[in-house]
Amino acid sequence: MRSRLGDVRANASKRGVDAFLVTDIKNIRYLSGFTGSSACIIVAENAGIFLTDSRYTEVAREEARGFTVKEYSKALNLNAAVAAEVKSRGITTLGFEANHLPYETFAKLKKTLGHVRLKPLTGMVSDIRARKDAEEITLIRKSAGLLDRGFEAACAMLRSGAIEKEVAWGVESFLRRTGADAFAFEPIIASGPRGALPHGKASDKKIKKGELVVVDMGVLLNGYNSDETRTYCIGRAGLKQKKIFDAVLTAQMRAIEKIRPGAAAKDVDLAARGCIEKAGFGKHFGHGTGHGVGLDVHEAPIIGPYSKDILEDGMVVTIEPGVYIHGFGGVRIEDMVHVVRGGAEIITKTPRGLICL
Amino acid sequence: MRSRLGDVRANASKRGVDAFLVTDIKNIRYLSGFTGSSACIIVAENAGIFLTDSRYTEVAREEARGFTVKEYSKALNLNAAVAAEVKSRGITTLGFEANHLPYETFAKLKKTLGHVRLKPLTGMVSDIRARKDAEEITLIRKSAGLLDRGFEAACAMLRSGAIEKEVAWGVESFLRRTGADAFAFEPIIASGPRGALPHGKASDKKIKKGELVVVDMGVLLNGYNSDETRTYCIGRAGLKQKKIFDAVLTAQMRAIEKIRPGAAAKDVDLAARGCIEKAGFGKHFGHGTGHGVGLDVHEAPIIGPYSKDILEDGMVVTIEPGVYIHGFGGVRIEDMVHVVRGGAEIITKTPRGLICL
Repeated sequence: MRSRLGDVRANASKRGVDAFLVTDIKNIRYLSGFTGSSACIIVAENAGIFLTDSRYTEVAREEARGFTVKEYSKALNLNAAVAAEVKSRGITTLGFEANHLPYETFAKLKKTLGHVRLKPLTGMVSDIRARKDAEEITLIRKSAGLLDRGFEAACAMLRSGAIEKEVAWGVESFLRRTGADAFAFEPIIASGPRGALPHGKASDKKIKKGELVVVDMGVLLNGYNSDETRTYCIGRAGLKQKKIFDAVLTAQMRAIEKIRPGAAAKDVDLAARGCIEKAGFGKHFGHGTGHGVGLDVHEAPIIGPYSKDILEDGMVVTIEPGVYIHGFGGVRIEDMVHVVRGGAEIITKTPRGLICL
Repeated sequence: MRSRLGDVRANASKRGVDAFLVTDIKNIRYLSGFTGSSACIIVAENAGIFLTDSRYTEVAREEARGFTVKEYSKALNLNAAVAAEVKSRGITTLGFEANHLPYETFAKLKKTLGHVRLKPLTGMVSDIRARKDAEEITLIRKSAGLLDRGFEAACAMLRSGAIEKEVAWGVESFLRRTGADAFAFEPIIASGPRGALPHGKASDKKIKKGELVVVDMGVLLNGYNSDETRTYCIGRAGLKQKKIFDAVLTAQMRAIEKIRPGAAAKDVDLAARGCIEKAGFGKHFGHGTGHGVGLDVHEAPIIGPYSKDILEDGMVVTIEPGVYIHGFGGVRIEDMVHVVRGGAEIITKTPRGLICL
């Protein structure tokens, strides 16, 4: 935590602010260890000030070691509490999280702070979070390892006649009993034509023989998310199904081969996209190829055609190309990949070939 | 949905804007029925424009009836898509959700929109959402009815030797099998001294004889949340435990008695707070008395000492005073109350007296 705070201070100094106001709750957790849902942090040169309300004061004193924990009430609201700290510490330029702080809070803070300059900043913490440290990699591996067991459980439940939602609940209850804190997001179990919805949440639909089933799940464990997708076939796969599956799997492999520190994220995307276009399904792959995963299911970097991100040692990203054909169905294959000096290490371990159940 | 859109248009016209940009996903659901996680809406005088990305286009066309659904891509990003609509429709003043839109999106939009005036507005949708219509009340009653069954299940599991987390999982799996979409929030099961943490999430602690246990849970069903708290005693309650419990229960009853359309929310809070102060526990009740519940677990109005809200016919609020004593434990009793012409109708039905298990 101390080195994370040090990195934020270095960023603050580079960006010309005396102090930095952190309002994104995941960034707060990352910097302090706080697991509650309402707080803000001021990272000043010589102090870390942790502001929260009475519901969380005790928890914050326990968890946010190294911070000065102060309680604000509805009378002395958050806004006033921040202003009091800023003024008493002689801070003249306060950076804030521009992609998180709502306009209204900004406007109120500006009014309260008077002559103090408020500077919108982005990426101050997310750039640091994108590169995972050893402790985080261990937690992410645990989360992904548990998720792999969830895919084994799903395999055992997917069959002709099963209801998508019942499979989802079966897997969730297995994962929760096995230690998961929660699903990382509402699971996608999309069979047959529903597979054409890239975010087809598990529904009351009955799974039928001959259908492809896209299963996209994640586990939240100790604050860290995992994210993985497999596509199964119920019974024997037809020619078109196999052709699409092969195109997506090849695309995924090509993208993973491109991964190394220094690679442009958009080139990784292009590797997948090029494959799918070559196979004739270009217009059926509408989303980006991947995203960072950690305390958030979706975080920096972005792996897509318009991304300016460069991959760095320690990043953890998903690689998840897909093909979605209206009325027919879809295929997506997604793994979590650790960017390492040698290239890429695949974290999720569930077999990737077409499994016919 | 049509009347909801009409109400927003009336608000827009009152606030002097030609069109209103909705970015809060729950407000989007409220106005359109869309259940996905990424979209925005422009409510113009003669049109409702629904912008989303390729993952959700099909779902939006299905769910957001009456809207013109348009897809944006990462190339034509959301910002550009909004600007294109605003310009092509000759909109000169665009309102936006000031307490939701991040500063950065505002700044980018302002740049892209050129001469179009951007006007920060608050409460445009939340004020309408605060008063529930008949359909919503039915959904909220269903959610609360299911939650009541969850409290019965909890009663059956709470005993000396049980682990807080295991009770939480037992209740959750019961509720999910019985039809709940999810818990509305991480359940609070806080026994003994942990009860002094108003948000003491279920932990690995073993529940012991003689302890008070605060159980605060909610159910999400068909998009609507419920929220309820009971405090139990494991074995016979001691004098101090009884005294605190009685103070909280009396405070809750006094607050509920104050509820009627036209009442000031702060007077409802004061009724509860006064009781607890009189019983000598004033400094141990740090949070507000309640909040609205609906598509969000916490929404308008606020029932607290600094609230300016006035209760109106159709609102649904929680009344949840509590007493938290460091090292000793806590008591909170929370019900959902429907504000009706005659006064108050309590929606949650679990018995409120001290149950010794």
